[in-house]
Amino acid sequence: MRVLVTGAGGYIGATLLTMLSKEMLIGDERIDALAAVDRQLPSLKAGVVGISGDLGSDATHSQIREFRPDFVFHLAAIPGGAAEEDYDAGRRVNLDTSLDLFEVLAESARAGGKAPVVVYASTVAVYGISLPDLVTPQTVLRPPISYGAHKLACEILLADFSRRGWLDGRSVRLPGIVARPRSPSGLVSAFMSDLLHALAAGESFTCPVGPAATAWWMSAHRCAQNLIHAAVMDVSSASSGRAWPLPVLRLSIDEVVQTLAHMYGANRKDLVRYEPKESVEAVFGRYPKLDDAESRALGLRDDESPKALVQRALGSLTD
Amino acid sequence: MRVLVTGAGGYIGATLLTMLSKEMLIGDERIDALAAVDRQLPSLKAGVVGISGDLGSDATHSQIREFRPDFVFHLAAIPGGAAEEDYDAGRRVNLDTSLDLFEVLAESARAGGKAPVVVYASTVAVYGISLPDLVTPQTVLRPPISYGAHKLACEILLADFSRRGWLDGRSVRLPGIVARPRSPSGLVSAFMSDLLHALAAGESFTCPVGPAATAWWMSAHRCAQNLIHAAVMDVSSASSGRAWPLPVLRLSIDEVVQTLAHMYGANRKDLVRYEPKESVEAVFGRYPKLDDAESRALGLRDDESPKALVQRALGSLTD
Repeated sequence: MRVLVTGAGGYIGATLLTMLSKEMLIGDERIDALAAVDRQLPSLKAGVVGISGDLGSDATHSQIREFRPDFVFHLAAIPGGAAEEDYDAGRRVNLDTSLDLFEVLAESARAGGKAPVVVYASTVAVYGISLPDLVTPQTVLRPPISYGAHKLACEILLADFSRRGWLDGRSVRLPGIVARPRSPSGLVSAFMSDLLHALAAGESFTCPVGPAATAWWMSAHRCAQNLIHAAVMDVSSASSGRAWPLPVLRLSIDEVVQTLAHMYGANRKDLVRYEPKESVEAVFGRYPKLDDAESRALGLRDDESPKALVQRALGSLTD
Repeated sequence: MRVLVTGAGGYIGATLLTMLSKEMLIGDERIDALAAVDRQLPSLKAGVVGISGDLGSDATHSQIREFRPDFVFHLAAIPGGAAEEDYDAGRRVNLDTSLDLFEVLAESARAGGKAPVVVYASTVAVYGISLPDLVTPQTVLRPPISYGAHKLACEILLADFSRRGWLDGRSVRLPGIVARPRSPSGLVSAFMSDLLHALAAGESFTCPVGPAATAWWMSAHRCAQNLIHAAVMDVSSASSGRAWPLPVLRLSIDEVVQTLAHMYGANRKDLVRYEPKESVEAVFGRYPKLDDAESRALGLRDDESPKALVQRALGSLTD
């Protein structure tokens, strides 16, 4: 099997690439060739094909065509906060470039060949704010930022390609993924990662949401495992079309702080100062319960416990 | 007020343009200037500005900028059947050209000016097939053709422009509109119009769905009235975001045939021969009930009765 990862220089992309290049398996299938696409690539393991360039360029498209992937993980994106600041860049990367990529990948099946599997990293930002107490597959989707609107449009377009038999698309909606590096990421949700890093290191942390603020959490490690599973899971009997939320741990900030205090020492609690901002709370502080039964039935998984979440997020648990 | 209509050479566009140029009112506001855009324009009333060209071209964009519309009715599209045959043309016109138009129209507000009102002609093809017994605002949208997928993507993008305050968007989902001219239109639903024309003229008709097949019906005249109303209705308290189905008459083919027989003579019933095709029935023959309460509350209207539908559709009722 030939496997391609876009956005391989990003946090989740690099985590996924490391996992794929270590196991060289996708489900039960052996990976014969692995390619990584990004403008700036991390140092690659021997044998991994690097496609360094703009994903939207003709040159990159040609290299992707030549690679002939059977499985594609499409992670390349401008993050939510940055895309909200720069509409034009967000449209280009998060909408046009994704759709152009789908069209390049669809050429094989349109010419009578096999449709590649495309795992698309969508986002829980498709849901919106002012959500009901339980988010279900029937919840009306009303993205509150352009990032979510463009990702939702791509979900719909990927489902249309799948209906046509040109791609075998699987959109998975990613929650807040931890623990990203502490550099500025353009993600408003970066505070979730920064909280973990700060308290683990024994540093003070100013939290832009209150202790009762609830969010949906997942470690990058578990996220990468889910992306790989999404590529091979049997979706033939799934009722939710071609898009699923990843199962999540719904935790309040206080629950996460308590977990960190339990792991690193009770004094860690005193390191947190709360300065809730309404704009951040509205988008990242009021996530309700999520009915993810269908996702779980397909074999997608959460991190199991707050402690395991923190351990995987900070690298001390690698399963 | 300055009003612009795209797709003004099409069936609904021409009906709307005629209505606007006759009344020169949009709600209570006087129309000071009226522009019509299409590749081929109908003969225009004196005073109507014709912008003849490809809606996606820079030249047309420049003319639209110069016209500075306060209200835009965006009807230009490649119809469902044609867009399904020619994916690339459908993507270009139904997705890219629409989004590019939204961006051109958004320039004013992005530069600190007023956001134009954009009434977008979406489609009931966003809903999909295998619908529940009652379609509600919570019904999951799963477009069964690329036309519906691209229109749904544009609904989402227009809502995002509205959220940003760059446009004041109102997407209305059009049902089967009758009675289109009998020339090939690229619409699979053209049989709904052909049935009316044939029986009114006393000609035989082969129906591609059975007598019990149900569809959502609206006359072009009532559709144009609804589009104008959509431009001025107060959406500030609407709960369904920025998209609404037009209220419809849900009628079986047999109810329509009975209505025509009542109006034109009982023998008209014998003119219909049923040759149901599963592919047509699946998309246009099983429309369930529609919960259009919110649309009605906003002042959008159906044709009131099957008889009035036929009369408006065939031009004998102009109210």
